[in-house]
Amino acid sequence: MGESPAIQDTYPDDVAHCYGCGRLNDLGHQIKTRLVRDGTRTEFIPEPFHTAIPGYTYGGLVASIIDCHSTGSAAIFSMQRDGKVVGSELSPRFVTARLEVDYLLPTPLSPVVLSGRLVEIKGRKVIVETDLSVDGTVTAKGLAVLVEIPQDRLGAGA
Amino acid sequence: MGESPAIQDTYPDDVAHCYGCGRLNDLGHQIKTRLVRDGTRTEFIPEPFHTAIPGYTYGGLVASIIDCHSTGSAAIFSMQRDGKVVGSELSPRFVTARLEVDYLLPTPLSPVVLSGRLVEIKGRKVIVETDLSVDGTVTAKGLAVLVEIPQDRLGAGA
Repeated sequence: MGESPAIQDTYPDDVAHCYGCGRLNDLGHQIKTRLVRDGTRTEFIPEPFHTAIPGYTYGGLVASIIDCHSTGSAAIFSMQRDGKVVGSELSPRFVTARLEVDYLLPTPLSPVVLSGRLVEIKGRKVIVETDLSVDGTVTAKGLAVLVEIPQDRLGAGA
Repeated sequence: MGESPAIQDTYPDDVAHCYGCGRLNDLGHQIKTRLVRDGTRTEFIPEPFHTAIPGYTYGGLVASIIDCHSTGSAAIFSMQRDGKVVGSELSPRFVTARLEVDYLLPTPLSPVVLSGRLVEIKGRKVIVETDLSVDGTVTAKGLAVLVEIPQDRLGAGA
């Protein structure tokens, strides 16, 4: 069985320029979030210059990738709720209303894995919890409240 | 009366490489946070590629600069508490334990101003509240819990 498509690869073109997750932003992080058995998953490799204290990933990047991983996760969980298959059609698009990050340990400047779980989904609002880990150790936890952009607001962008 | 020095210009060299606020990170944002009459202030101009939905600043950058503005603000408030003058000696250095961001409105891709207020200071822990605004309109609010790196841990880095 193949890997699930990345949700960001199915964002409508006019909302696919986000610096964190837009596939059409050549200078951005272009993170990819996929449905896995028990939630969602994003892998990310920080650049050497994404440093905080030397040797560690700066907290702003940790927050950024948790944020974009959460918007992608919300789209995936929303499609699941609606009985839709990721990759079969354009994705809904969520924005962040609230983001909480707990920095439990310094995050080494190494490849990170983000694992997302659905906490709540109600109408256009989704709450996603995220563990960010390096080599299996969770160094940060995120909780994000995401809201779907109404369909009639899509297509109006650049 | 001249402008107060930027706290980041007084970070010890070996903890001045943060992508968000390190003056020694040539590829980073190099934000500058200063003491003002009623708190702290950081100004930042997003790049055109720091986009979310077209025309707006991506939420990860908003979180990032609130984060680094808060660590700088914590250092300033800590020096004030201890009767020290910003710029007269090397700064203490804080890391983030918890960050909360409420995205109240989309943040236009325009110059932003961050205003920080001291909420609580107790020992090595400081809590800072931040308003992020564009043209006088607050688009995001941050609350950060910062912890000072012990002096004996400084000087061990690169």
